[in-house]
Amino acid sequence: MMKKFVNDPKQFVPEMLQGIALANPDRICYVPQYNLIMRSGAPDDAKVSIVQGSGSGHEPAHVMVVGKGMLDAACPGDVFSAPPVDYVYETIRRLKSQKGVLLLVNNYTGDRLSFDMAREMAEAEGIRCETVIIDDDVAVSGSTHTVGRRGVAGNFFVIKAVGAASECGAGLDELAALGRRVNSVTRTLGIALSSCTPPAKGAPLFDLGGDEIEVGIGIHGEPGRRRDKLVPASAIVEMILDAVVPDLPYQSGDDVALMLNGLGGTPLSELYLLYGLAHRRLAGRGIRVRRSYVGEYCTSLEMAGASLTLVKLDDQLVSLLDAPADTVLRIF
Amino acid sequence: MMKKFVNDPKQFVPEMLQGIALANPDRICYVPQYNLIMRSGAPDDAKVSIVQGSGSGHEPAHVMVVGKGMLDAACPGDVFSAPPVDYVYETIRRLKSQKGVLLLVNNYTGDRLSFDMAREMAEAEGIRCETVIIDDDVAVSGSTHTVGRRGVAGNFFVIKAVGAASECGAGLDELAALGRRVNSVTRTLGIALSSCTPPAKGAPLFDLGGDEIEVGIGIHGEPGRRRDKLVPASAIVEMILDAVVPDLPYQSGDDVALMLNGLGGTPLSELYLLYGLAHRRLAGRGIRVRRSYVGEYCTSLEMAGASLTLVKLDDQLVSLLDAPADTVLRIF
Repeated sequence: MMKKFVNDPKQFVPEMLQGIALANPDRICYVPQYNLIMRSGAPDDAKVSIVQGSGSGHEPAHVMVVGKGMLDAACPGDVFSAPPVDYVYETIRRLKSQKGVLLLVNNYTGDRLSFDMAREMAEAEGIRCETVIIDDDVAVSGSTHTVGRRGVAGNFFVIKAVGAASECGAGLDELAALGRRVNSVTRTLGIALSSCTPPAKGAPLFDLGGDEIEVGIGIHGEPGRRRDKLVPASAIVEMILDAVVPDLPYQSGDDVALMLNGLGGTPLSELYLLYGLAHRRLAGRGIRVRRSYVGEYCTSLEMAGASLTLVKLDDQLVSLLDAPADTVLRIF
Repeated sequence: MMKKFVNDPKQFVPEMLQGIALANPDRICYVPQYNLIMRSGAPDDAKVSIVQGSGSGHEPAHVMVVGKGMLDAACPGDVFSAPPVDYVYETIRRLKSQKGVLLLVNNYTGDRLSFDMAREMAEAEGIRCETVIIDDDVAVSGSTHTVGRRGVAGNFFVIKAVGAASECGAGLDELAALGRRVNSVTRTLGIALSSCTPPAKGAPLFDLGGDEIEVGIGIHGEPGRRRDKLVPASAIVEMILDAVVPDLPYQSGDDVALMLNGLGGTPLSELYLLYGLAHRRLAGRGIRVRRSYVGEYCTSLEMAGASLTLVKLDDQLVSLLDAPADTVLRIF
């Protein structure tokens, strides 16, 4: 039996979005017919509008990072389903700004298709658009729903950087170049300790043995590189770093941001434990952690697991990451 | 088999604390021999020092809410175990301020014992202390480890209020009175969908049937009021409000803060779904939600479940809740 706080599974996403809207009356507007969460006051012709859409089930990505300094709008699809073309198209139309609309898309076939078609329709109406594809996951070079690498938690750094730069008046081409630059220095790998259960499916997405982990898990439960036996946290961190560090590569002398992202069912205590191990092992490789992010950023419902993201930093990127933001996702 | 990111279970808490320290070099100091997390620059004779200790496993409570506008220090015990007397005593000594030390204690027998003894020892050395006991859980009037009601997520509001007031220079007696006043208008009830597994035990704390929920769960897995069959989210919210609202009572015309707290394994999507249902049902009872808090504040490791807290608000309390804070627990 599925154990979740849910009414009708078909209403899972709308009921979540209603909750977000009720909790944030001054920050956002909610347009139910398109699952659209817009920042209050958007669009603003003085800034590029930044839009992301994706399947739901990855919260806080992306509906909860709408707000000042981050996204101007998010249009999610159903759980683990790309947003329909008309959702994306309506979102772009409503977010039309004289400075243009920047579309951030994680690299999944369904999401790209929706965004490409919607962009074409919007451009035919004279709306200027640019697209940045995020593909930070080093696990596999193609997967169930993907040609090329998948976009996962590293996407947060792209949003944060272009969101901050857009508040300072950066133009569309500049933002697209910045987003691509951040993506190009960002790498992630995730490990699952459990599956997860989409409300409409009512059963686990995949089976994982009681002593098994999936190395390189996708955020929709897609297979990774391999299944391993569960090992101590130190060995898991070493395994992740051995995949992520050489991929860019991150080198001795580099400054990085280090993110330990929970996949939904893993507590903060374990994430900080992993963080500490990773921080020290990176120091041992001569890589200095200059900024740290620990918590849930891009999840897979209640999946137990974590992903580790590295971003190679320079002073511009640090100042963009440090810029203030005010979103649905907040503590106080 | 226990599926967690862990090395030696005995090192679970120290390794988590090391991670917190490495991720926050400018914000906090870590004193390993007493599990002590201190705010950088504390103690400050211009402000009362605010200290909380409790068992670990409830993160972000309390080690991750150390920082400006919240706690000056936290001294956790092992998972679900009260901090030893000498940890608390050393914490009070190191946090000694001319304005005194305020001790916040959730109402569990072990925690009270440690804090009472440590306070006596500190007072014998001339350190002025006051204690505020938090007991917001309406579920039961006594429990496995408790005489009287238990302290759970509502504790966050006490910390936030006294933390903000202490930054403005409030004295020890004033802060203690404020803390007691906030506790007196705060009520919580939690529902568990699953058990959780303490690392050192390696097995679930309790068993819960595949279609069962524990109504009024304690944050250490203590029994609540009863076991029920899992019902739709709307019915769960109604059940919680029927327990919480009449208890104070919260009445038509009241302004409240509404917190939907995740117990560790429940995703943000479900918490916002519950939030939306609760917000509207409260409105239907004439109770206006003026401030909202959705996320993880006081957890039980990876337990699936949620608690709902109401706080009756007045203008003073709203301004204390809105005051800026900067803690380990942050997103950006």
